[in-house]
Amino acid sequence: MNGKLYAIGTGPGSSDLITVRAARLLGQLDLLYAPAGRRGGDSLALSIVREYLGEQVEVRERHFPMSTHDDEKEQVWDEVAEEMAQEVAAGRQVGFVTLGDAMLFSTWVFLLKRLQGRVQLEVIPGVTSFAAIAARAIFPLAMEQQSMAVVSCTAPEAELEQALRQHSCVVLMKVYGRFAKVRDLLDRLELLPHALLMAEASLPNEQCFRSLGDLGNEVALPYFSTIVVNRAWLSATSNSTTKEVL
Amino acid sequence: MNGKLYAIGTGPGSSDLITVRAARLLGQLDLLYAPAGRRGGDSLALSIVREYLGEQVEVRERHFPMSTHDDEKEQVWDEVAEEMAQEVAAGRQVGFVTLGDAMLFSTWVFLLKRLQGRVQLEVIPGVTSFAAIAARAIFPLAMEQQSMAVVSCTAPEAELEQALRQHSCVVLMKVYGRFAKVRDLLDRLELLPHALLMAEASLPNEQCFRSLGDLGNEVALPYFSTIVVNRAWLSATSNSTTKEVL
Repeated sequence: MNGKLYAIGTGPGSSDLITVRAARLLGQLDLLYAPAGRRGGDSLALSIVREYLGEQVEVRERHFPMSTHDDEKEQVWDEVAEEMAQEVAAGRQVGFVTLGDAMLFSTWVFLLKRLQGRVQLEVIPGVTSFAAIAARAIFPLAMEQQSMAVVSCTAPEAELEQALRQHSCVVLMKVYGRFAKVRDLLDRLELLPHALLMAEASLPNEQCFRSLGDLGNEVALPYFSTIVVNRAWLSATSNSTTKEVL
Repeated sequence: MNGKLYAIGTGPGSSDLITVRAARLLGQLDLLYAPAGRRGGDSLALSIVREYLGEQVEVRERHFPMSTHDDEKEQVWDEVAEEMAQEVAAGRQVGFVTLGDAMLFSTWVFLLKRLQGRVQLEVIPGVTSFAAIAARAIFPLAMEQQSMAVVSCTAPEAELEQALRQHSCVVLMKVYGRFAKVRDLLDRLELLPHALLMAEASLPNEQCFRSLGDLGNEVALPYFSTIVVNRAWLSATSNSTTKEVL
């Protein structure tokens, strides 16, 4: 049997939000790579898929530094890609798990750049975090002629403002540490009634905030916090099965 | 047992790209509503989920007209929503299947508007069509500081151009009938080498076109055709497991 590399999107966090295809594939792998957790903790991606792994699978966690030193990052990607290529060449079925979808804001793409054309590979898509947020908060994204933008709050404020002015729906990722700035921008654009913040959607610690104007600057937000804005929908009137903290 | 309404995203088309949660839930429903197919054909959403349905489930296909007469559409939504509310009130577990994700460009939201606050409801997210396209074509969407916009080709050309100028990645939905216009726009913006078109991703008739400049104006495209643009990636150099038609 020829070796192959599979990039597997785990979905947003709950184990049963991975695809049936991913669940079946995880039972058949020889080897699974998972990005190691921050601060030496367990890999979230690994914890999502663990129940589906076959007994034969060897699991290798690899730490990918968030370092601002590009050289250090590049070296880690190079090493892991080389290791994967050798395992596939040896005929093994090799997986790599990545949170959400594999092709959207995923570290997988750094490996892809190094491996495309070198090994046989297949990508299994996953449910994105914003789809899970919309579902849990029962808060629609775009519909019909509307448009959606997905941006990172690390972008310059002018870019965030432009997206918020031009699109019906905007997903603001990586809110962590930038909440006050983003809240003030939403306030200035009169979009607070159309916004909600969700952290850890579909996970046990899921939190949903719908009155962002009432939140203090120093609110402690989990790392995976996202704001969704839909100017055609009022966030306060959406009902929800979500545990509301406000 | 209390009645409940579940909106279930089926994912892009292949039956094994629905979530494990959706597959399990489909085995337990009393009643499933599905949007009827165009031209009286089978419902695609229904065909995706059929293998997971329990023996007890009653299936009801309902036709939602694409009519430009808003009154006609509104009346159908009103009727189906009322029927669903009555079934839930009678204590039944009622599902509604919708292609892709339930909260993004989904007809489900028309029912949601009528039922929110009236019945207990839960939304099961799904894999979006663009995630499936990116996976099948092995063509990344946005990463890191980049941004993504998802727009409909039915929007004014100026809006499409703005999105293409401002975002690293743009997903152009509803290409059908507008291919020549969009191709010429991509040509003018020098984005053709960064674009690909995919139709029916993950389905048996999947088609992927990577050299859009070589396609004639009269090319026959399937109804579900989407163009993905990533200005940080060359479409021609992506390898792929997809059946290539050019």
